[in-house]
Amino acid sequence: MTTTSGRTNTPATQYKVVGTRPIRHDGADKVTGRARYGLDFNVVGLLHGKILRSPHVHARIKSIDTSAAEKLPGVKAVVTARDFPANPKGQPIDFAEAGADVRVLAENIMAGRVVLYQGHAVAAVAATNEHIAEEALGLIKVEYEVLPALLDVRESMKPDAPLIHEKLTTFFTKDRQGRGENTGVKSNIATHLQFKRGDLATGFKEAHVVVEREFTTSMVHQGYIEPYVSTGQWGKDGRITVWTSTQNPFGIRASTAAILGVPESTVKVVSMEIGGGFGGKQPAYLDPVAAMLSKKSGRPVKIVMTRKEVFDSTGPASGSYLRCKIGATKDGRITAAELYLAYEAGAFPGSPIAGGAMSSFGPYKVENMMVEGYDVVVNKPKVQAYRAPGQPQTNFAVESVVDELAQKLGIDPLEFRIKNATDEGDLMPSGMVFPPMGLKQLEEAMKNHDHYKTPLTGPNRGRGIAVGYRFNGGGVSSATINVNDDGTVALVTGSVDIGGTRTSVAMQAAEVLGLRAEDVTPTVVDTDSIGWTGTTAGSRVTFDTGLAAITTAEEVKRLMIARAAKIWEVPPAEVAFKDGVFTSLKNPNDKLTFKQLAARLRATGGPVTASAINGSTGVGPIFAGNIIDVEVDPETGKVQILRCTAFMDAGKAVHPSYVEGQLQGGTAQGIGWALNEEYFLTKEGGMANSTFLDYRMPTALDLPLIDTVLIEVPNPRHPFGLRGVGEVPIVPPPAALANAIARATGARLTKLPMKPGTIWEAVEAHKAATKTKK
Amino acid sequence: MTTTSGRTNTPATQYKVVGTRPIRHDGADKVTGRARYGLDFNVVGLLHGKILRSPHVHARIKSIDTSAAEKLPGVKAVVTARDFPANPKGQPIDFAEAGADVRVLAENIMAGRVVLYQGHAVAAVAATNEHIAEEALGLIKVEYEVLPALLDVRESMKPDAPLIHEKLTTFFTKDRQGRGENTGVKSNIATHLQFKRGDLATGFKEAHVVVEREFTTSMVHQGYIEPYVSTGQWGKDGRITVWTSTQNPFGIRASTAAILGVPESTVKVVSMEIGGGFGGKQPAYLDPVAAMLSKKSGRPVKIVMTRKEVFDSTGPASGSYLRCKIGATKDGRITAAELYLAYEAGAFPGSPIAGGAMSSFGPYKVENMMVEGYDVVVNKPKVQAYRAPGQPQTNFAVESVVDELAQKLGIDPLEFRIKNATDEGDLMPSGMVFPPMGLKQLEEAMKNHDHYKTPLTGPNRGRGIAVGYRFNGGGVSSATINVNDDGTVALVTGSVDIGGTRTSVAMQAAEVLGLRAEDVTPTVVDTDSIGWTGTTAGSRVTFDTGLAAITTAEEVKRLMIARAAKIWEVPPAEVAFKDGVFTSLKNPNDKLTFKQLAARLRATGGPVTASAINGSTGVGPIFAGNIIDVEVDPETGKVQILRCTAFMDAGKAVHPSYVEGQLQGGTAQGIGWALNEEYFLTKEGGMANSTFLDYRMPTALDLPLIDTVLIEVPNPRHPFGLRGVGEVPIVPPPAALANAIARATGARLTKLPMKPGTIWEAVEAHKAATKTKK
Repeated sequence: MTTTSGRTNTPATQYKVVGTRPIRHDGADKVTGRARYGLDFNVVGLLHGKILRSPHVHARIKSIDTSAAEKLPGVKAVVTARDFPANPKGQPIDFAEAGADVRVLAENIMAGRVVLYQGHAVAAVAATNEHIAEEALGLIKVEYEVLPALLDVRESMKPDAPLIHEKLTTFFTKDRQGRGENTGVKSNIATHLQFKRGDLATGFKEAHVVVEREFTTSMVHQGYIEPYVSTGQWGKDGRITVWTSTQNPFGIRASTAAILGVPESTVKVVSMEIGGGFGGKQPAYLDPVAAMLSKKSGRPVKIVMTRKEVFDSTGPASGSYLRCKIGATKDGRITAAELYLAYEAGAFPGSPIAGGAMSSFGPYKVENMMVEGYDVVVNKPKVQAYRAPGQPQTNFAVESVVDELAQKLGIDPLEFRIKNATDEGDLMPSGMVFPPMGLKQLEEAMKNHDHYKTPLTGPNRGRGIAVGYRFNGGGVSSATINVNDDGTVALVTGSVDIGGTRTSVAMQAAEVLGLRAEDVTPTVVDTDSIGWTGTTAGSRVTFDTGLAAITTAEEVKRLMIARAAKIWEVPPAEVAFKDGVFTSLKNPNDKLTFKQLAARLRATGGPVTASAINGSTGVGPIFAGNIIDVEVDPETGKVQILRCTAFMDAGKAVHPSYVEGQLQGGTAQGIGWALNEEYFLTKEGGMANSTFLDYRMPTALDLPLIDTVLIEVPNPRHPFGLRGVGEVPIVPPPAALANAIARATGARLTKLPMKPGTIWEAVEAHKAATKTKK
Repeated sequence: MTTTSGRTNTPATQYKVVGTRPIRHDGADKVTGRARYGLDFNVVGLLHGKILRSPHVHARIKSIDTSAAEKLPGVKAVVTARDFPANPKGQPIDFAEAGADVRVLAENIMAGRVVLYQGHAVAAVAATNEHIAEEALGLIKVEYEVLPALLDVRESMKPDAPLIHEKLTTFFTKDRQGRGENTGVKSNIATHLQFKRGDLATGFKEAHVVVEREFTTSMVHQGYIEPYVSTGQWGKDGRITVWTSTQNPFGIRASTAAILGVPESTVKVVSMEIGGGFGGKQPAYLDPVAAMLSKKSGRPVKIVMTRKEVFDSTGPASGSYLRCKIGATKDGRITAAELYLAYEAGAFPGSPIAGGAMSSFGPYKVENMMVEGYDVVVNKPKVQAYRAPGQPQTNFAVESVVDELAQKLGIDPLEFRIKNATDEGDLMPSGMVFPPMGLKQLEEAMKNHDHYKTPLTGPNRGRGIAVGYRFNGGGVSSATINVNDDGTVALVTGSVDIGGTRTSVAMQAAEVLGLRAEDVTPTVVDTDSIGWTGTTAGSRVTFDTGLAAITTAEEVKRLMIARAAKIWEVPPAEVAFKDGVFTSLKNPNDKLTFKQLAARLRATGGPVTASAINGSTGVGPIFAGNIIDVEVDPETGKVQILRCTAFMDAGKAVHPSYVEGQLQGGTAQGIGWALNEEYFLTKEGGMANSTFLDYRMPTALDLPLIDTVLIEVPNPRHPFGLRGVGEVPIVPPPAALANAIARATGARLTKLPMKPGTIWEAVEAHKAATKTKK
């Protein structure tokens, strides 16, 4: 069901292509196996690479002896950190120094002096087959001196905690873009972020009810189906090609070049089809290693991660500790709100605290507010983006406390939210001013939905709601359009297609040119063959690459109008283009369809081509909400989801099926994060459940049918009004489920995942506490 | 040695990149085996295709039974002409009808009702490996009714000759572009072309000496090292991809689509690296067959030709019969010239008579002139372009007669040519007016060259010269340029690189942008990823794709100037760009190199990209000449080349090494055509020497060191003055060698190849005739 809100910020336009549901251009490729993924890449002389990884969570590397491995027949190259120009300083990283970023990239792909997490790479081998490479790994002797490990964010923050990085000092910032100053204090806290307005004390004094709770969330993984895989080829002329699975080919180009110490333009990145990413497939892990093994062996080298490597050695989402306190008046007006967030960065700084802090209280008008965030290093893999990075954690805390507050005040939780909802002109937590947005329309749609109006009855059942917010960033993308003689066009971009963006971008070009979606052939090309294009992440591709495609299509339109003008011998200003037809204003009988004019291009001055770069500095705000009904088994703590409805303000759904897919997929991942997924650590700090059997992602049997409702409040930043829909759907499920469980059992769950054991314990504790009170 | 003529049509410019000799961008790829040719293409599930070919030269197909082949385990698909929508009409082709072109394409790739030459395809098989495919061919039963064969152009022209095509009628034209009228006369003569001016009778009356001779030339093959190879994949969504070895990816796209009866835009052609083409790798032979086998089998299918298939079934150059008559006054002024040319078209119309006729008397001022050309079908493979198509044949005739005329008049053959040389403003044989050109400069350079001045002594030795002319056509090409952060640029084109055009085009972009050649990374992409681009042939790529690159680079310059203007807050008109540096006219201390500005693009509005299409309707005239010294062994007729100097007016040599390479390569092929190469036919009309052992292409041992002299008379049609240098070098060698042999032995050779036996016979005949005279 697609619901369109009554409110529109731009005049209603009847689109011909945008808003329809054509078959995706790469559909047949994907379902028939014709699409070529990283693993499918093969070339004569290919070697197979394997990486030796640290068994220790934290240890000094005293020595590495690769001589026996090098002698093994079939082994063609062995590399260690020494081989990477950006790496082997022997000195600890000075994070205040220029170039520290490259040092971190290099150290993370191959440890130089210290291993900082279990699975940290220490050496790599290329051999004629995988078995020999595997065997060679066993012949590499690494002498370690085990160091004390820090596995919990709060432990790591303690003033007397051992320092993971000798030269890391805390950076303090009040700015969403990270401008601030270095405190000079040595610590495992890399960044301390503070957003503040009004006066908390005054605000809480005004409140009649205050709720404060602590929360923890476990480290979780994106769980993309395709493991990391990369093939590197270092030519004798110094030109490097990598065929890889990535969301960010130009980023891989930049970091591969930096780690290898070569100019960026000598590296060509060919992004193969990608089997999922969810933010986690942006950094380089294998690419520089494969390239360096290729340089040493003189042959192309492919490395494929195992699932264990993906879990152990790529970037998951931060585990976190949060504290949230919100006060409200009797009539339900929020007077003050405070949030403390400490995020695990993993082995190197860089957790998404800014993302968490920025969204936090976004859906609420709060005069007196403080958000304090800490980015903290621990001995775990360096975290990476995961769909709305940092936001499910804060949303879990904020939306749980809001719910409890509404409960205590005896106000309907949606009414409470609507009463306090932000709107255009209000302040975001970061201090920016909200542009036009659809929060109220979303909350009204939730309130008026059949699901919310249908009473939920029966024992151990509860209904939870939550609303999630994300301010989508932006970036630039390139596009080229070539007009074919038969009136179709080829659309070339550099945006890796994860969620159907070939089609959603092609549809926008088609809209401008009066073509059908099928008349546009979208192609994603390598970094040598298209202008610079930012990452496929941050909910930006349909928006930003769409803008680039629109700009390019407008230029094609201009060139085609000029051609029609030439044919009719009139000035271009006297040619109109509407609904795919060029018409002479002077002589309206002079008409040419796009197809007809395309057929005449070659004879009237040659074919038409155009390229453009466009994009945004911010896609803008987006909101999503969930209504979830659960039944909790009091014997086992198992949660059964009875009904789930997911809402989102899409601005304008270019291809509604894909937007619904994003909404369902994000909700499913949010449910997994909420109920089951976690890095279960051994005593030593290694991951004990690094298989898909033991890392419990939800299966079809665990999930309900997820109903979707799209609201469309046009985004004035885009000509068709769209917003970026990829990420926000993952945000509300943990809180919505916690709220549902609280209403079903009376117990407030404050720890993710809310797995059966945890729930059972919480319910038992609640029962005991209730009894005691009685 | 590079000689620059004193005459320049454009002001002398000091280029920084154009005219230098950087290492080619794809050099390392090619020498280290990293470059991927058609044969290197591999994919999971690949099937191997083989084609069954006619053992007869001319026969009606009575029936084809593929049932046994289809049943062979491992066979996945069998196709015949019936499977191709454009093909199986069962009716003879009506050449006057619309769509006859497509019918010819289709019939040539798979015979429907009649086989027209030995090697004509009749069926194809795809199987799990080549051996099974081969075996399956043996199981296909074809019933033929053998028809009379026509193997000689003069036999085929006879009024009572059997008709090869029932519905072919002669088309008469006086126009170089082929406009004219159909005579309605049924014949094996497809076209009769006539260029005429002045009055022949008057002209010959004025002459004191007239020489007239008949000539024949044998069919020869381009002899590219890499055989045809193509992989086709027909997706379940109707989208077709072919990975192929071609000079003309957009042409392959068009003809594959036409033959398969699908829209052009559903076909993507990926041009792999190409192992030679010389004009012969433009048509589709395998692509539609591989695609159709893929459709029937559901799997990708690769077909690789054997060398025998390349000889038997792809397009060689026309064998020909010519008659040339030229008269001159005592003092050496040509008064009249007549040329008759009859070219074998092979099985379907389309020999290069227009090319031959257009160049014919190009180097000579002739008031009274007539050129008559005939395009004649015979039972041989359909001919195709071969380097300066049709021109070595006419040049052999014209330059032999000119030489004999000079000899008879007792005038130095170069003096004779210089005296009669055409210049700017004179008429070409086709009636067009010559633009600025370098013929006289070329002939003066030949005359003044040490080679010509050094006397040749010794028995059985002779020196021959010849001058060749070609009017190079043109076409359009697309280019895209993307600026990298590090100040390098990526240049994307669709021009398959045969002779180093990645580099020669990149150099032109570098020149405009003030960069080094190494700073430009050229990439050749598939037909979905670049605007329409014409074939890599006709000496046009460095010229036309160069123009596209220049136009695109100018647009990049404009965008970069605008960016500098933005940074300095001045109007763009107040920013100068010279020698790679942007300078503010207002404040000349504001300076940014291209590299510095490139680094600031992302922060000042995003990266820069541009695309353009450009090209020409004619590259323009080009001339080449040879001085060749030979010694003829009177016992065996074997020719030893003692010294060979090749001259060419390059206009401006963008990369002199490549121009020299073209000059040497073309000369070598011309020598092969002159002395050794021929289709040696069996009595039945099949080729008896279809291996590289028996088809005698010259080896390094046969060839002299070829000295090169480049003259540079700038071509005003191109900003850097270049001409198209790929083809004309092949034109003069046959005549130069014939003239050298005549001067060494007294015998005039009028038949190509001038192989030892033919020479021995001619010398013996000459001796006999001389004796008789005495």
